[in-house]
Amino acid sequence: MSKPTPISGFPEWLPPQRMIELHVLDRLRSTFELYGFAPLETRSVEPLDQLLRKGETSKEVYLLRRLQDDAGADVGADALGLHFDLTVPFARFVLENAGKLQFPFRRYQIQKVWRGERPQEGRYREFLQADIDIVDRDTLPFHYEVELPLVIGDALGGLPLGQPDGELPVVIQVNNRKLCEGFYRGLGIEDAEGALRVIDKLDKIGPDRVAAALSETVGASDAQARACLALAQIGAADASFVDQVRALGVDDPMLDEGLAELAAVVEAAGRYAPGLCRAELKIARGLDYYTGTVYETQLRGFERAGSICSGGRYDNLATAGADRFPGVGLSIGVSRMLGLLFGAGVLTVSRQVPTAVLVALPDEERRADCDQVAAALRARGIATEVAPGAQKYGKQIRFAERRGIPFVWFPGGDGEPDTVKDIRSGDQAEAFAATWAPPAVDLRPQVHGG
Amino acid sequence: MSKPTPISGFPEWLPPQRMIELHVLDRLRSTFELYGFAPLETRSVEPLDQLLRKGETSKEVYLLRRLQDDAGADVGADALGLHFDLTVPFARFVLENAGKLQFPFRRYQIQKVWRGERPQEGRYREFLQADIDIVDRDTLPFHYEVELPLVIGDALGGLPLGQPDGELPVVIQVNNRKLCEGFYRGLGIEDAEGALRVIDKLDKIGPDRVAAALSETVGASDAQARACLALAQIGAADASFVDQVRALGVDDPMLDEGLAELAAVVEAAGRYAPGLCRAELKIARGLDYYTGTVYETQLRGFERAGSICSGGRYDNLATAGADRFPGVGLSIGVSRMLGLLFGAGVLTVSRQVPTAVLVALPDEERRADCDQVAAALRARGIATEVAPGAQKYGKQIRFAERRGIPFVWFPGGDGEPDTVKDIRSGDQAEAFAATWAPPAVDLRPQVHGG
Repeated sequence: MSKPTPISGFPEWLPPQRMIELHVLDRLRSTFELYGFAPLETRSVEPLDQLLRKGETSKEVYLLRRLQDDAGADVGADALGLHFDLTVPFARFVLENAGKLQFPFRRYQIQKVWRGERPQEGRYREFLQADIDIVDRDTLPFHYEVELPLVIGDALGGLPLGQPDGELPVVIQVNNRKLCEGFYRGLGIEDAEGALRVIDKLDKIGPDRVAAALSETVGASDAQARACLALAQIGAADASFVDQVRALGVDDPMLDEGLAELAAVVEAAGRYAPGLCRAELKIARGLDYYTGTVYETQLRGFERAGSICSGGRYDNLATAGADRFPGVGLSIGVSRMLGLLFGAGVLTVSRQVPTAVLVALPDEERRADCDQVAAALRARGIATEVAPGAQKYGKQIRFAERRGIPFVWFPGGDGEPDTVKDIRSGDQAEAFAATWAPPAVDLRPQVHGG
Repeated sequence: MSKPTPISGFPEWLPPQRMIELHVLDRLRSTFELYGFAPLETRSVEPLDQLLRKGETSKEVYLLRRLQDDAGADVGADALGLHFDLTVPFARFVLENAGKLQFPFRRYQIQKVWRGERPQEGRYREFLQADIDIVDRDTLPFHYEVELPLVIGDALGGLPLGQPDGELPVVIQVNNRKLCEGFYRGLGIEDAEGALRVIDKLDKIGPDRVAAALSETVGASDAQARACLALAQIGAADASFVDQVRALGVDDPMLDEGLAELAAVVEAAGRYAPGLCRAELKIARGLDYYTGTVYETQLRGFERAGSICSGGRYDNLATAGADRFPGVGLSIGVSRMLGLLFGAGVLTVSRQVPTAVLVALPDEERRADCDQVAAALRARGIATEVAPGAQKYGKQIRFAERRGIPFVWFPGGDGEPDTVKDIRSGDQAEAFAATWAPPAVDLRPQVHGG
């Protein structure tokens, strides 16, 4: 065969990058578990009618077809497509398994998702997401909308993502659908959802074209459009945004509710994680299933790349007949975030393999001795390889060097003790496989940022 | 919408089962890393011509199609299909990235694979595999064929998979392609590969039909067919099989090589992991890319369910022009193994959530105090949730009970100290969030087998 080539939109990391990715995923998982989120994976496919039920991504679905099936077969509602996010499958899973779950149900889910983008757009078509959601039966207390961004802040805050020491690597921008919808209604705009969709494009198309679009699509007057834009320009790191909104002179009970909720999120974040959350009233989130708090997240240094962690509260996504499971969730775009950081060369790992020790092989007849040294080290959690062949020691040391393996173990024999050499410093000392250990910092590959 | 239903062949575990699966995956990963295997994930898709290049699974591929593409479009060689194993993508990855990898290259890969089986067959169409492979440039030393089953034995041997105490949960059945091919050639059968494919069906169709098929497909005489069957019936836990093969009176240099290699695998396993490996000369592995040692693995108590971990040596899978990367690999069918164990009710977990402590909520005004207790416990690695609402304490305790959360924390206040209660024993004692810790056994959910 000829040499294979990459496929646009399907990124693959080399092992050192995958080691960094696993380091990030381990941190996410352990943090999610500390907050009591249970793990879940759903199947990769959903029936097409499920996938098209909500949201605006209906054009980006990959359908599956068995190779030997008829190519021209009709696509029915029961055709299978790859999921394009983890929220829709989760809502389906909750409805399907409600009788077996305890509510409120907290779960995390770290899985690939797929979008059938056109190849030439250069966007990811396969990528990894890490989601947390809390759903409850019938009603969901508001306080979970406060808790969720703090969990994300804790998870990402512990990672070296290029931020200056002691600072958080992300800012979560928060808004509230009730606030916006109440404001639009109080202004006299009937189609609040339509207005939200237009405002969502503010960063892309600018205020003038937003004003024109508001007039066109929801029939806003000039004054109404100006008020919508004024609202969208409000942002604050604390609850001072409330007075700025009040100053626009709009009155509506849903607006009041939204203002109180958004203030509660920002104030709690100010207490527990100063700098983590900002009220940004332009944040709209295109998907029409959000009903309360909405979140977008900027990675510091990559603000223009868009949100790397988004979500919000949804009241009507998991609903079947009389069963209703409102929820709130946030989804970290792991591939997107790592793609940015890898692209900028921000993240590094101290070696290319998990191995901490290479056992050098004096000659092939002594492989069994070397295997025993390796087994003794592994039994105490020290990742160890035996050299592939009995080449000259210089070559074996270069084998370790090329991979960043810090220690080479030289078996003694004939009454001579074993020795171990730190090949970075050149220090070499007697050692016993049953007791020697590397410094803690060398036990596992270290991930560094910035 | 109406209540959704499962899709045949796409299994989904509930969170307690997923916790067990993660426990298994953690053990596999940490063992693989102890042996120096680096992590890798490849994209989920390959061009169709890659997927159809080798092996016998060409009929079981799922093709992708973008929803808005023409349904009747022709399927070209560059059409994308979901990978059906992790070996073919790995071979492609090695060829594509050879310049960036260090050889010999050891990697593990834990990912979903898909097979486009007919729905009515009731087989998995999406499942999780955990693979280890070692590839080298140009030549691959034989000793890796000895090492790989030991890594698998170490990884699975540490898991509670229903085996009696102190025993290994699996038996790896080993054979060698050179042994069989050499034997068939020594017998005078030209089409050794054809004979292997027939012998591979021995367990399914029995010796009489195998003899008939050998006559039909490779033109074997009665005596030749009898000799093939006699070879396939040989099995031993040690190198005693060599004499049994010799007694059949066939002579061939490739047979000699195969006998020596198989004896080396079985003898090394006998030294390091007694009972782990057995020579079984009927093991053939259908895939035609194997060229040396081949492995199949029985899960004890589920011998009739077939192999849960298979693989072998391949010399020609990753080859492009003059570049040649021989390898050896083993693949654990994680979903298959867990499906058997879950079905038999063998595996259990001590609770349904990661949470070790539920902080009870005296009233909603004190949520901030409770959040601080939770934060203090989490800061020391203790998974903690705060109660969802300020119901009566009896109800809050039942919330914990239903999930198997072992401890409930009662905030004091008004000069009273906090207390923590083990709700299994009823024991309750004063506690400080900055210092209290649960017994180590209660820190994380425990997985039990058998």
